[in-house]
Amino acid sequence: MNLDFLFYPKSVAVVGASNKEGKIGNAIMKNLMNFGFKGKIYPVNVKESEVMGLKAYKSVLEIPDDVDVAVIAIPAKFVPQVVEECGQKGVKGAVVISAGFKEAGNVELEEKLVEVARKWNIRVVGPNCLGITNIENGFDCTFNPPERQARPGFGGIAFMSQSGAFGAAILDWAAKHEVGMSKFISLGNMADLDESDFMTYLGEDPKTSVITAYIEGVKNGRKFFNTAKKVTLKKPVVILKSGRTEAGAKAAASHTGSLAGSYAIYKAAFEQSGVLEARSMRQLFNYAKALAMQKPAKGDRVAIVTNGGGAGVMMSDGLLERGMKLAELSETTNEKFRKAIEEGKLPEHMSYKNPIDIIGDAPSSRYEIAMRYALEDENVDVLVVIALFQSPALDEGIVEAVGRMQEYGKPIVFVAPGGEFPEKMARRIEKTGVPVFETVEDGVDAVYALVKYGQYLEDTM
Amino acid sequence: MNLDFLFYPKSVAVVGASNKEGKIGNAIMKNLMNFGFKGKIYPVNVKESEVMGLKAYKSVLEIPDDVDVAVIAIPAKFVPQVVEECGQKGVKGAVVISAGFKEAGNVELEEKLVEVARKWNIRVVGPNCLGITNIENGFDCTFNPPERQARPGFGGIAFMSQSGAFGAAILDWAAKHEVGMSKFISLGNMADLDESDFMTYLGEDPKTSVITAYIEGVKNGRKFFNTAKKVTLKKPVVILKSGRTEAGAKAAASHTGSLAGSYAIYKAAFEQSGVLEARSMRQLFNYAKALAMQKPAKGDRVAIVTNGGGAGVMMSDGLLERGMKLAELSETTNEKFRKAIEEGKLPEHMSYKNPIDIIGDAPSSRYEIAMRYALEDENVDVLVVIALFQSPALDEGIVEAVGRMQEYGKPIVFVAPGGEFPEKMARRIEKTGVPVFETVEDGVDAVYALVKYGQYLEDTM
Repeated sequence: MNLDFLFYPKSVAVVGASNKEGKIGNAIMKNLMNFGFKGKIYPVNVKESEVMGLKAYKSVLEIPDDVDVAVIAIPAKFVPQVVEECGQKGVKGAVVISAGFKEAGNVELEEKLVEVARKWNIRVVGPNCLGITNIENGFDCTFNPPERQARPGFGGIAFMSQSGAFGAAILDWAAKHEVGMSKFISLGNMADLDESDFMTYLGEDPKTSVITAYIEGVKNGRKFFNTAKKVTLKKPVVILKSGRTEAGAKAAASHTGSLAGSYAIYKAAFEQSGVLEARSMRQLFNYAKALAMQKPAKGDRVAIVTNGGGAGVMMSDGLLERGMKLAELSETTNEKFRKAIEEGKLPEHMSYKNPIDIIGDAPSSRYEIAMRYALEDENVDVLVVIALFQSPALDEGIVEAVGRMQEYGKPIVFVAPGGEFPEKMARRIEKTGVPVFETVEDGVDAVYALVKYGQYLEDTM
Repeated sequence: MNLDFLFYPKSVAVVGASNKEGKIGNAIMKNLMNFGFKGKIYPVNVKESEVMGLKAYKSVLEIPDDVDVAVIAIPAKFVPQVVEECGQKGVKGAVVISAGFKEAGNVELEEKLVEVARKWNIRVVGPNCLGITNIENGFDCTFNPPERQARPGFGGIAFMSQSGAFGAAILDWAAKHEVGMSKFISLGNMADLDESDFMTYLGEDPKTSVITAYIEGVKNGRKFFNTAKKVTLKKPVVILKSGRTEAGAKAAASHTGSLAGSYAIYKAAFEQSGVLEARSMRQLFNYAKALAMQKPAKGDRVAIVTNGGGAGVMMSDGLLERGMKLAELSETTNEKFRKAIEEGKLPEHMSYKNPIDIIGDAPSSRYEIAMRYALEDENVDVLVVIALFQSPALDEGIVEAVGRMQEYGKPIVFVAPGGEFPEKMARRIEKTGVPVFETVEDGVDAVYALVKYGQYLEDTM
């Protein structure tokens, strides 16, 4: 399924484009014009002759050019007629922002919309959605203003959301945390295109390396399962499914009309189709960030290198509580450590039982030795590096040292708890390709995702 | 137990004070001088006549003034002799930064230290610790420089840590997240003063409203249990205990020498003594922040007001998964909502079944009505307010509106997911006394702490 026409349109019509501040059709125009989108923009407004300095048309039919995508933000009852005109015009995709369809009890109106779209072979996003965003080319037809909802930088994580509001929060959050994203889709009512269609598309999208989603219920269970099974062999899929409890399911029913169904069935379907299930927003991003930046692990044996004993203990607990193992370092590795200590390259009071505690006064050179020994050990599948940057002994050479460790081809997760200085270092380390997390528990999530997805691939392929 | 002499000293001797950059005795001097501490500082150094512009003394005995606290940062083997001199001088407390005692196998040296201290009735913090900090008066004898480890503002949360490095990370983290703290104690080897002693002191400290701790193992189980049982009746105690798993316990044994003992026993002891157990750093702070800012809940029935359906569903799941309930709103409340909708004060398509979804275009006036109705309902013990600030419809009047809700005397937890704008609003809302959290899951933690501690008090008192 190729939906490139939706995300890389050469020309877009905005039906309901408006000069009036506060109108959705005004906000969409601004967002289309403000993030670098290079395609043509054609405002459509029955009353205005010009919108935001661009010539406006009474109907898409009047536009003297091909139109790839129509973004529709007008009262619901007029939407089917506009889609009809889009069909006559040869429009390929319609993003229907308008609410007032099935979610408001107007089931027939939504059926009518789908009927017209099918007749003309138009693919529909929504209705009742926030729009879609392609971070790569700045095609952003959502309607929240940038001063309220920042846009993330370009990166490998795609996100689709059954909740527009939560989707907006996610984009805003990703921007603040400097997590790069590829594409965002507000799914809305999924009258036509649903989560499985987008999963298929994103599975083939070379700009997306991890697919993430917030859903309350899937539209078609069988289709979802078969799609997920195929896509997860190509790239990781991480889903936050809400409506897990009775109260949550009730709330979901009144929110998106999703019959959440038994959570146990979802859980089993995720498990069997290789979908990683996140239980919270932060976990969703921890999983996604790890998988976007590192290769899945070949096994569950983790080595920890730390300059703080306490953090090493907490990391050990976290890993074991999530079903992973601490790697038992080989005799060869122990011997290497013993020799380095003898030669004065490593301090006498350190512990080289895993967690490898290189103690509080460790400079980056000491990290480098310990990281190498751990990564060279065949009993180690994943390396966790914990750095408490509050210690002034830890020099900035750690950035390059960690970067060099990627030559071993084993996944690495970095944890740097604290405030501003660690955060600054984190962003620098991430430029070398190693993901950095703010807390031990976030790091545990990251390792879990790499191990769990690796296991699934191992078991399946 | 009054340890005010340790945290509010009139005069401090720094034994091992140094002019040399990079020396611990230099870093301690700087920190004592840099955060507003008004007491007298007497550097002690056998070789220097002046340190950092202050007259230096060869021994504490030469200081021509009373000395309340001696901070000791010299090689371990000289420490007992210095403590002996401190005793002769009438020093009341010694903070022993020096490492090289029990943790390095030198058990006898540590026993010697304790013996001398007992003889002179000197209370000892450490040895092998990072120092202590009183945020209130700027008395900070820790040794990490501020450019690596920021200091939080003054507030009600005290923290003690068996891991100095993790303690430093916590302070740095609290500063970044603008969480106010009262006192910080790096426990070190706990040769004399232990976690129970400090718990007793902090329990009586009027500047501390919540006591938090990171521990790997307690020094004396019976003492801890009895102390906790008393203190939790006065104020909440939140503990992050690591070494819960076999691998974690092993790592703890090599880190602090703690025989972590069976985790099941700790768990039971926490439960029975009213200690809230946090499983991660973030949870520790979520619990502490909620309890520092709001009163414990009288029950477990939670109402949710939200402008985003999805976030309401996730919050419902989170609360139920942690054993809480969604409040069933009374018929009176339903009637009020119906009336307000009829009168056009609330929108037709909103849901007033809990979660109360006032939908995406809600301004603060709509929040105010919904919050009041929820808080007036006798079936509601706690109110959760979720605001997706990405919607430009939500005006800044929400700050004052939420502040006004405190008149009902029920605990309120606010959740504002996203990036910079929500964060800015969060800090403003917190000035009214309502704690704000970044994600739904953090908000769930906050409610849990208020409910769980409230239940304990209810059952015990």
